[in-house]
Amino acid sequence: MNKKESKVAVVGAGVIGCSWAAYYAVHGLQVNVCDIQEGYQEHARERISVLAAEIPNADVKMAVKQLSFFTSVEEAVAGVDLIQENGPERKAIKQQMFADFERYAPEDALLVSSSSGIVPEDLSVRMKTPERALIGHPVNPAHLLPVVEICGGKDSPKALVEQLENFYRDCGRVTATLNKPIEGFVTNRLQTALVREAIHLVGKGVVNVHDLDQLFMASLGVRWASIGPFLTGQLGGGTGGFRGIAEKILTPLFTSMGYEPVSGETLDMLEQQTTEYYPMDKMKEFAKVRDERQKAVLDIQKNHPLPNKT
Amino acid sequence: MNKKESKVAVVGAGVIGCSWAAYYAVHGLQVNVCDIQEGYQEHARERISVLAAEIPNADVKMAVKQLSFFTSVEEAVAGVDLIQENGPERKAIKQQMFADFERYAPEDALLVSSSSGIVPEDLSVRMKTPERALIGHPVNPAHLLPVVEICGGKDSPKALVEQLENFYRDCGRVTATLNKPIEGFVTNRLQTALVREAIHLVGKGVVNVHDLDQLFMASLGVRWASIGPFLTGQLGGGTGGFRGIAEKILTPLFTSMGYEPVSGETLDMLEQQTTEYYPMDKMKEFAKVRDERQKAVLDIQKNHPLPNKT
Repeated sequence: MNKKESKVAVVGAGVIGCSWAAYYAVHGLQVNVCDIQEGYQEHARERISVLAAEIPNADVKMAVKQLSFFTSVEEAVAGVDLIQENGPERKAIKQQMFADFERYAPEDALLVSSSSGIVPEDLSVRMKTPERALIGHPVNPAHLLPVVEICGGKDSPKALVEQLENFYRDCGRVTATLNKPIEGFVTNRLQTALVREAIHLVGKGVVNVHDLDQLFMASLGVRWASIGPFLTGQLGGGTGGFRGIAEKILTPLFTSMGYEPVSGETLDMLEQQTTEYYPMDKMKEFAKVRDERQKAVLDIQKNHPLPNKT
Repeated sequence: MNKKESKVAVVGAGVIGCSWAAYYAVHGLQVNVCDIQEGYQEHARERISVLAAEIPNADVKMAVKQLSFFTSVEEAVAGVDLIQENGPERKAIKQQMFADFERYAPEDALLVSSSSGIVPEDLSVRMKTPERALIGHPVNPAHLLPVVEICGGKDSPKALVEQLENFYRDCGRVTATLNKPIEGFVTNRLQTALVREAIHLVGKGVVNVHDLDQLFMASLGVRWASIGPFLTGQLGGGTGGFRGIAEKILTPLFTSMGYEPVSGETLDMLEQQTTEYYPMDKMKEFAKVRDERQKAVLDIQKNHPLPNKT
C-alpha cells in the first residue's frame, strides 16, 4: 500500500475524529470526514486545520485540500481503504455503524474503531463477517501521540491484523498489538487502575486533587516517561530484580491495600519475562538511559510550567 | 537553618542511603554515613562518589570531603540536625532504629525514614516521643529526582512537619506533604495499583512484559510526565470536565474491571476540586502546555533509546 494514494473515512467528527482527520490529512491521505450532525462541516474544518497546524512540519494548506465532508456514511465509506470510527462510546451506536460499514465499504477495507474500551466482539454483533471488526485505539491528543493500540477479535485473521499494523506504520504511527481482546484494552485498564486509587486517596482526604497531580508528575510521571513498570521493578530490585521487589515491596503493599496476592505461577512467569527482556548483565545500561531520560523530563517540566489556577 | 552548616546522619548505606548521602554531600551538608555491615565503607565511598558525579554541576571532590563513616548509630547521630533512615523495609528493624535515634540523637534533631510504605505509627512504637517519627520518602534514583513525599504521624506537631519541609527545600528538594498517614503513601499506592493491573494483563496473556512497558511509555508515560491523572480527566472530558469523563468512561470500566462504583458524594468532591484547581476557562492554556511537554517527552524517548536485550 502506498499511503499517498490511500483514502480513509473518519466517521464521527468529535475530538478524536478531528485529530485523526488532521493526522491522516497531514500525512497525505485523502480523508472523507463524516458526521450526522447537521452543519458540522464548518466547525470541523476549522478544528482540523488548527490541529493540523500543531503537528510538527505540517503543510496545513495541503492537508486541508485532502479533506471531503459527508453526512451520509454510505457515501463517505465508498472506495476507502480504511474506516476510522470515532462515534460515541456506546455499544448500540457502534454496532449499527459497523453493520453499515460492512454493507457500504469495499470488501477489503479495514474497519477500525477508535474505542478506548469496547472489544471487537461487542462492535460486530450485527455484522455478517464479525471478524472484520478491529480496534485502533489512539491516545489523546491523537494527532500528536504516535502510538496506536491494536486489537482484533477472537476470530480475526492474523493477516488482517498485520494489514492494519502495516497501514498505521506506513503513515508514521507506532503500533502495539494485543494478543487477545479485553475490555478497556491495556492503556485504559492501566489508567483506570491508577485513577481508582487516586480517587480513593482524595476521597479519604490524604491529599487533594492538585497536590496528588503535582506529586505524581514529579515522581511516577518522570519515572514512567523513562521506563515502564516492569523495567522499573527489574531495576529497583537490586540483584533480586523484579521478583525481589515483588516479594519484598509489592507483597506487603498488596496485603495492606486489600489486593489478592500474586500467585507463584504468575511470579515465575514474570521473573522469566523480566529476565529475558531486561537481562541482569544489562542493568547498568538500562539505568544509564533511565537517568538521562529522567533528567531531561525534569527539565521539560521546569521549562514548560503549567498555568496557575488564577 | 543554614544548610551549609547542617549535619545529617544517613543510616543504612544501600541503594537509597548512598543516593541520599551523595545528594546531601553535593549540597554542602556534612554527612555521617552509618551501616552495621563490617567493612562497608570502601564500597559505600566509591558508590557515593559515582552517584555524586551524576548530579548536575556537582563538585565531587568537595562532596567526598563532607563524608564520615560510622558503624555505630550512637556515634553517627551525635550532634546531627536530621537523620535519614534507609534500613531494610521491615518494621521490627526500623522500630529498633527509631528507638536508638531518640536515645542518641539531639532532642531537636529531625528523625526521618525513607520508607516507601511504613507509616510513622509503625516506626515509633518503641519511642517515648512517637510523634517525632516522620517520613521523607524519596523517589528512586533519589540523588536525581528532587521530590520528597513527607508524612507525619497522627500526633506529629504541624510545626515539626513544616520544619522538615523547610529543611528539604533549603537543600533544593521539592516537597509534597500528605494530610494524614496511609500505608504505601501516595506514590507507592498509585504505583502498586497500576502494577497490579499490569501483572493481571501479563498473567492473562493479553500482552508480554516488554510490549506492556513499550505501549505504556508511549501512551500513559508521555501523558503523565506532562499532566497528572485529574488534569487528564478535566482536559479529556470536553465541556463535562472530569465529572463527564468519570461518568462516561470510568464508570463502565469500573464495572467491567470489577471495581466498586465511585459514590456520588466522592464525585461531587472531585468535581468541586477539579473545577477549582483546573478552571474550565483555562483549559486551552493547560492543553497548550500539555502538548508542548508531550512533544518534548516524545523527542527525549527517541533521542535516548533503551538498549536492546541482546
